[in-house]
Formats: sequence, structure tokens, C-alpha cells
Amino acid sequence: MATTEAVKAKTLLGECSAELAGTFILILFGCGVVAQVVAGGEGLGDHDSIAWAWGIGVTLGIYVAGRMTGAHLNPAVTIALAAFRGFSWKKVLPYSVAQLLGAFLAALVVRWNYTEALNKFDPGLTIKSQGVFSTLPGNGSLDLGVDMWGGFRDQIIGTAILMFVILAITDLRNTAPAANLAPFIVGLLVVGIGMAWGTNAGYAINPARDFGPRLASFFTGYDGAFKDQFGDVYFWVPIVAPIIGALVGAFLYDLLVGRNLPIADDDEEPGRIPEENTTA
Amino acid sequence: MATTEAVKAKTLLGECSAELAGTFILILFGCGVVAQVVAGGEGLGDHDSIAWAWGIGVTLGIYVAGRMTGAHLNPAVTIALAAFRGFSWKKVLPYSVAQLLGAFLAALVVRWNYTEALNKFDPGLTIKSQGVFSTLPGNGSLDLGVDMWGGFRDQIIGTAILMFVILAITDLRNTAPAANLAPFIVGLLVVGIGMAWGTNAGYAINPARDFGPRLASFFTGYDGAFKDQFGDVYFWVPIVAPIIGALVGAFLYDLLVGRNLPIADDDEEPGRIPEENTTA
Amino acid sequence: MATTEAVKAKTLLGECSAELAGTFILILFGCGVVAQVVAGGEGLGDHDSIAWAWGIGVTLGIYVAGRMTGAHLNPAVTIALAAFRGFSWKKVLPYSVAQLLGAFLAALVVRWNYTEALNKFDPGLTIKSQGVFSTLPGNGSLDLGVDMWGGFRDQIIGTAILMFVILAITDLRNTAPAANLAPFIVGLLVVGIGMAWGTNAGYAINPARDFGPRLASFFTGYDGAFKDQFGDVYFWVPIVAPIIGALVGAFLYDLLVGRNLPIADDDEEPGRIPEENTTA
Amino acid sequence: MATTEAVKAKTLLGECSAELAGTFILILFGCGVVAQVVAGGEGLGDHDSIAWAWGIGVTLGIYVAGRMTGAHLNPAVTIALAAFRGFSWKKVLPYSVAQLLGAFLAALVVRWNYTEALNKFDPGLTIKSQGVFSTLPGNGSLDLGVDMWGGFRDQIIGTAILMFVILAITDLRNTAPAANLAPFIVGLLVVGIGMAWGTNAGYAINPARDFGPRLASFFTGYDGAFKDQFGDVYFWVPIVAPIIGALVGAFLYDLLVGRNLPIADDDEEPGRIPEENTTA
Repeated sequence: MATTEAVKAKTLLGECSAELAGTFILILFGCGVVAQVVAGGEGLGDHDSIAWAWGIGVTLGIYVAGRMTGAHLNPAVTIALAAFRGFSWKKVLPYSVAQLLGAFLAALVVRWNYTEALNKFDPGLTIKSQGVFSTLPGNGSLDLGVDMWGGFRDQIIGTAILMFVILAITDLRNTAPAANLAPFIVGLLVVGIGMAWGTNAGYAINPARDFGPRLASFFTGYDGAFKDQFGDVYFWVPIVAPIIGALVGAFLYDLLVGRNLPIADDDEEPGRIPEENTTA
Repeated sequence: MATTEAVKAKTLLGECSAELAGTFILILFGCGVVAQVVAGGEGLGDHDSIAWAWGIGVTLGIYVAGRMTGAHLNPAVTIALAAFRGFSWKKVLPYSVAQLLGAFLAALVVRWNYTEALNKFDPGLTIKSQGVFSTLPGNGSLDLGVDMWGGFRDQIIGTAILMFVILAITDLRNTAPAANLAPFIVGLLVVGIGMAWGTNAGYAINPARDFGPRLASFFTGYDGAFKDQFGDVYFWVPIVAPIIGALVGAFLYDLLVGRNLPIADDDEEPGRIPEENTTA
Repeated sequence: MATTEAVKAKTLLGECSAELAGTFILILFGCGVVAQVVAGGEGLGDHDSIAWAWGIGVTLGIYVAGRMTGAHLNPAVTIALAAFRGFSWKKVLPYSVAQLLGAFLAALVVRWNYTEALNKFDPGLTIKSQGVFSTLPGNGSLDLGVDMWGGFRDQIIGTAILMFVILAITDLRNTAPAANLAPFIVGLLVVGIGMAWGTNAGYAINPARDFGPRLASFFTGYDGAFKDQFGDVYFWVPIVAPIIGALVGAFLYDLLVGRNLPIADDDEEPGRIPEENTTA
Repeated sequence: MATTEAVKAKTLLGECSAELAGTFILILFGCGVVAQVVAGGEGLGDHDSIAWAWGIGVTLGIYVAGRMTGAHLNPAVTIALAAFRGFSWKKVLPYSVAQLLGAFLAALVVRWNYTEALNKFDPGLTIKSQGVFSTLPGNGSLDLGVDMWGGFRDQIIGTAILMFVILAITDLRNTAPAANLAPFIVGLLVVGIGMAWGTNAGYAINPARDFGPRLASFFTGYDGAFKDQFGDVYFWVPIVAPIIGALVGAFLYDLLVGRNLPIADDDEEPGRIPEENTTA
């Protein structure tokens, strides 16, 4: 690992590798905990475990990718940062592909490790265990009355909350956590979303988190992976709605808080990403 | 968002906007989690989820408004800071209105997103799901024996605990958490209150948190929103008692701890809010 | 609160007031959560809530008293600090009395606020709800086979763990948490003890925490407060055993870790309490 | 504890003593919580408690040993640090023995304190309560379909996750938590592994954690301690697989993240352990 160069800069490949790795870790915890709770047998957790482990996965994924990219781990976040914080549009696609790939690979690992448990719980690999990998309206319930529109609306709101609060937490001109502890608070944010905004659509709030594992389940035997419990094609909802939501959330943060923050003489422009993070 | 002015100061409108936004975020988590647990179907959480998500909502709401106002998010806190910490009395009303409005709007979002779930769980929009939005004595129980007085007493005590500990946590002359992590500890405080002081009156401990969502539920079909399960007019209890409680708590903190703290030569006056936060 | 003196030092009365206040806050959460879970009706928490709220109470109590005394909140800790860290023996009694008084008063507040719930759950104020206030061998179980000796042994071990880890966490020559966040980690320590060492004797690990509320319950109608479920006089166990345990724990920390820590030129003597905290 | 030498360095014995003490604390919480939940009677916790208390035990164990050794507490971590971070191979064996001994002694304390509860729950000291001390494929389930290979595979993956994220969290050239709070985040990592990767093999992810308590249970009456529920010799799985997994995880971290991190002029070589921690 030693290098003969005295100074080494970041490369786009390195950044994408970090986004892949961070999202990989996130999904190892995220899909892992749902597999454990849903298919792992009695008494190995409950919905609180799911909320906590997803949040912990986010925290840890951010620590993995933090230095290289700021740890987006989410195409909706990447797009909103491009639209509202000067993140390079040219990097939106490579970042998103890396995030998707990381999520896909992690879901394959979960699928592999929980082979026996999934086969016992749901031998036909049906919608009964589809939720281990990807989200469904009303978490697959036929009784709750939540349909595709309910999920779409929910994913806009949930991702708007995510993006609004991420911008608050990471805004150095606000009261951002110091000591490199913002990843912990962002994890708590996702715990809270899981507890309060997980009813209608399983809080994907991240196109990569949902579509990567959905693909992984499809390629490993889940034939119905792209549909919901009503037989409708659903996979696009947790892709499109989170992107809209992230844009809404970023706009609202700047409207209600960001533009009002005091500026001192030596402040940089509000919320702009430091040069270091915009390699090209 | 760029500005041509080199230096920008805070405005009262900006402060109120931040209080609105912070309380908005708080209630999105707070009423959201109760909606999920009560009406969202089997197995999507329990009382622990409610306690944690309210606390997380507080933490995140503080990060949203922290820099602009110190993040009161609660008229009882605002009044106690005016009475005991030199916060401008002129700003008490605008702050309180902003907090109430933020809570009201957030409750409307919860009401909207959980339309299907609430209709399934409680088609008549009765007291059965009123607790999603506002508090009731004994959390609506007819058997616990807690009446209006039990709730009133409880809200004085609970809010006194809240205010006492907030003053301890944020007192720079005590051992206040550094690295901008006080919002996390204040969130834990609210988690603890939910776990230990949530029996008698659902721990409103905040007039805006209770009355804003109560109004939102009233305007969207909950005709009985102002009464409790015994048919008595209850809405004033979680307004009046928290204000009394916050004053009691602030008084006791200064009596038992604040006035005894050592003062060094270069200390400012104990507990006084820095100039920066008192724009008018 | 303003003072005409430019510099003010700590007084013993101020220190005792802070110990009282910190222990008061601790017990408000501790006995409060047991009241809520045991007597507060269905679904308002479980053993996990009890573990978390006790831990949160510890964290918050430390923030209350931290600057004045370092926040012992526990006579066993005070005695161990006197024996192993140079804390003034003359202050052991006043500190302990203040801790006991704080715990007593807080338990009265819990007793008062939960009057209706306790009367509903256990009209005779028997051993059935005694556990809200003070501990019992095997948490009152007749079936677990844990008797007085089981509780005594457990309280030595549990308090030894507490003291061992407190010394590790607060040892500036080890890797003590900075940014004034040690209170949070000490809270986690108590959460962990509640989850792993709460079976045999309800983890009093603190004579004031147990005897103060025990007295409060006795004076408010719990005639059997000093006995256990077998009719034996038990109250002395959670007083004597924690003191032994704290001494054992402090000894073992210094033996296994403290005496081996490296000393740099500019280090003070290992583990010694700074002058500032030893007013007399 | 005072010393006449102005400067004192670390010794290997002191380091081993710290590793022993840290692992001792870890296992006191880890085996303790399983004893409480499994054998401690009704309602004293659930799988979430197990996940949290193991994580808290890790956090606290790291605070105990942090300054002396960096707190490996795990032979698999020690080996991976030797292979990938220049940790002295000569110290791998003494560290591992100390870790094993600490775990063994702590399990004896748990065994002793929970004598009555274990005797009540499982008088024959069979596989029914073996899981208090050591891990089993599928947590002892006969129905889940997980056999020795399922456990082996799972332990490679789980320990790879552990090591990958530990290297990320502690890499000062990444975004490592400051203020000495990395132990808390590492604790969260283990909480998450317990929630998401605890199904197939009870997340030993640490040869000392598993084999030490296994020996302790064997020497105190658990005759079948080395076998699984199918009668196969299983004890070697949570020894061998975690070592492989830690190596895989460390390799992947360097591949995907570590080697891409930017290097500034004044940076040391990436990820290398500071001189201070490599006494010989």
C-alpha cells in the first residue's frame, strides 16, 4: 500500500469504488436484517431491529465512503447534491451505477448466506419473502389499503425528509455534528424514518437500495420481483419517487433554513461542497 | 443562494422560519411513528419505537433550527428561556406561532400520508386513533384511573424534568456535550421521558406539539379532537401544564445547580444566551 | 444569578446540592420507567425500556452534576473513589446523604404521579409493585431459585463491573471519550448491566438508588418494603454488596489496566482526581 | 500507583493484561445477556437486548484496553492486523492467549452468577442452554436447515464485515470518529451484525469469544460443549472461519477503499499502526 509518490489525489474510479463499497456495507446490514427477522426463525428480532440495523448500516456505510466521496450511497442524494450543491453532473451517472452495483452485490451475499432460511420459509421464492430484498406498497399487505399511489406519495415524502435533514446535519454553517460523528446522526435519521415512515412503502428512499437487491432477487429465482402484491409493475416507484422527494427536500431546506443562515466575513458560500470533493 | 453582501445577519423572519422547520421535522417523526404503530398494521413497531422516534425527531429538529435560534421547538421552552435566561419577551409570541404552525403542517402531512391506514383502522376518525395526533389522559384508557388532574399534574412534572435537564445539558458552565452533540443528548432526554413519564398523559410536554396536530386532526375529520375519552374538554391541559412545568424546572435547575456553579475570571454571566442569538 | 464577585469557587453545600439533583434526575427516570412498564397498563414498554431509561437517567444525572462533583450519584462509587482515587473521606458521608435524599425525593414524585396506576395495579401496595421502587432477589420471582445469597453475590459482581468500567471510561490516561461525552458512555454501561446483569437482583448497584426509593415506598403505604418475597429482611443487601463490589472493581481495574498505562513526562499521577474537584 | 520514574513505557505483559481485561468485560456483557434472556425468566429481554448488550460490551471492552493495545479483543482481528497493518507477528500468540483467557474467566463468572437460573431452566446442562456460552449452527435450531457449512460460510462473511468496517472506522485517513468515540461506533457495528448476521451461526465472529466460554461451560458440566445439535464436532468452525473472514475483510477494505485514499504531504503511510502501539 506504500506509494512512491509523496502526494496522491482522488480518482473518479476510486470514488466510485468507495460508493460501491459503502452501499455494499449498507445493504449487507439492510437486507441482512430483514432476512433474519422475516425468514430467520422465531425470536431473532422484530421491526425495531429492522429500523436499527438499517440505520446502523447507513452509519457504517458512510464511514466506509466518507473521505472519498462524502458518502452519498443513494442516487437520489447524488442528484439532489448536483441540483442544489454544485456536485458535478458528470459524476451523477458513474456514482449511481456504483451505488446500484454495490447494492446488487450485497444482496447476492445476503441471498447466498440465507439460502437455507429462505428455502425453509418460502420454498417458492414468492412475494412472501420478496420484502427481504425490495419494497412493496403497504409492505405487501392486502388489507392496509395502500396501493401504488400510496407508495409513490410516501416515497416522495420520506425521501424529502431524508434529504432535508441530511442537508441540515451536514451544513457547516448550521450546527453540524463535529468530531466526524455526522454519520451516526444520519444513521439515527434513517432509524427514525424506518419507525415513522415505513408503513406505506417500506422506506426505500433510495433507488439503488431498492433496485439493486430487486435485480439480485430476480436473477436468483424471484420471478415476480418487479411486481407488487396486486400484480402491478411496481419497481419504478422506489426509483422515481425518491428522486422527486430528494429534490423537494433540498429545495425546502434552502427555502426555510439554508438561505437565512447568517454569513460571516470568512464564510464560504453556503452549503457548497469543498473543492476537494469535486475532482472534475 | 449566493449573496452579494459579504456579511448577513439573522432576521426574526428567518428565526421563525427555522423554528417552524425544526418543529415540522419533529412532528413528522413524532406523529408519524404513532400513526405507524397504532394504525399501520401488525408488527410495525411498539411503544419503544414511539419513544425512540420522538427522541430522534427532537434531535433532528434541533439540528435543523440549531444555528438560527438554538432550536426551542416548544413554546414552554421559549417562555422559560425568556423568564430565566434573558430571551427576548418580544419574540415569545412569534416563535410560539411558528412552532405551532410547523407542528400543524407536519400533522397534516402525516394525516395525508396515512389516509388509507387511518381509514382502515378507524373509519369513523374517533378517539380510537385521536392519539396519533394529540394526547389524552392515560393515553385514552378508561381503566387506568387517570383523569384530567392526573394528566395536568403529570404534564407539570414531565415538562419540569425536560426543562431542568435541557438547562443542564446546554449550560456551558456545566459539562455540556461538545462537538455539536447536545441535540443527540436532548433527544435521549425525550426518549427517557417517553419511557418513564408517558403513562398519565402521553408526554406532550410541549404546547405546540399537542395543539398543532390537534387542530390538524380537527380540520380533517376528527370532530372530538378537543375532548378526552370521558367527554371533557381536555385540549388546554397540554398547553397550560407544560408552561407551568417549564418554569418550575428552570427555577429548580438554577436553585439546585446553576447558582452554585463555579465562576472563573473569564466566564460570562451564567447561562445567559449569547448576544448573537438575541437579534432584537 | 448574577454575582458581584468576579470569581466564585465551589462549596460543599453546592456539591451536595448537585449530587442530590443528579440522583434526583436519575431516579425520576429509573423508578419512573418501572412504574410505567409494571403498572402503567398494557403496551407501554418492556424490559428493554427499563434498561434504556435507567441508562438514560444515569447519563442525564451525570450532566446535571458533572461540573460540580464529577457526578458520583452513588455512595458505592463515592467510597471507591475515596479508597482508590484520593477523593476526600470527609466528603463521603455528606455526598452519600445527598444522594440518598435525592433518590428518596424522586421516588416520592414517582409515587405521587403514579398514584392512580399503582392503585389500579396493586391496591394493597404489596410486593407485586414493590419492584417499582426497590430491588428484590430474582426480581421477586418465587420460581427462579435465586435467594438472598444469589442477590448478594450478583450485586458484588454487578457493581464491580460498574466501577471497573467507570474507571476505564473516565481515565484520561486511557482512551476516555472526549467532547464531554463520557456521561453517554456511562449510560450505555448501565444499559448493558440492566440487560446482562439484571436477573438475580434487579441491578441496584447503588445503595442510594435502592434505599432511598425503598424508604419512600415504606412511608407511603408499602409496609413490606424492607423484606423480600420470602419474608426475609433484604434491604441491606443492595447497600452492603454494592460497596464491596465497587471496591473490588476499582482494585481490579488498577491491577489489570491502570498500573500498566504508560506515563509520559507531562502526565499527572494516574487517575488522580484534579484538584478542582477536591474543595476540602 | 505513584511511580518514581518520570516516564513509563508499555510492556507486553501490560498489553496482554489489557487484552485479557477488555475481553473479560466484553464477555461479561455478552454471555451475561444471553443467560438473562434465555434462562433468566420471562420478560427480561429479547433478541434485541442480546444484540445491544453484545455491542455495548464491545464498546466498553475497547475503552478498557484502548490505550494499551488499541483493543483487539479478538484473535481474528489480531491476525488480520498482523497480516495487513504491520502488527508484530510475535505478539499474535500472547495477545490471543490473553483474549482467550479473559473470555474464559468471564464465562466462569457468568456461569457462577447464573447457577440457579441455569439449573432451573436446563437442569441437565444440555444443548438447550449451551447457547448461553458458545454458538451453534442456526442457533441450535433443528428446523432452519442450517448445518455446519451454513455456519462456516456465515462466519467468514460476518467476520469479513466486522474487519472491513473496523478498518474503515479506525482509518485516520478516512473519516474516523474523533473525540475517542470510535469504540462506540464499533459497538454499533456489532449490534448491527447481531441483528442482521446472527441467524446462521450466532455471530461468534471471534475465536476467543466462542472458544473461551465453550471451555468454561465444558469444565462446569456441559459435556456436549464441543458438538452441535446434530452431534457433529462444531467448535472449530467459530475459530477457523472468523480468521479467514477477517483476512478477507481486511483485503477487501484495502482493495476497495484503503488504496484509493488521498495522501497529503504530511500523511504517514496509510493505515499503519503508530509506532507507540508496536512495542516490540
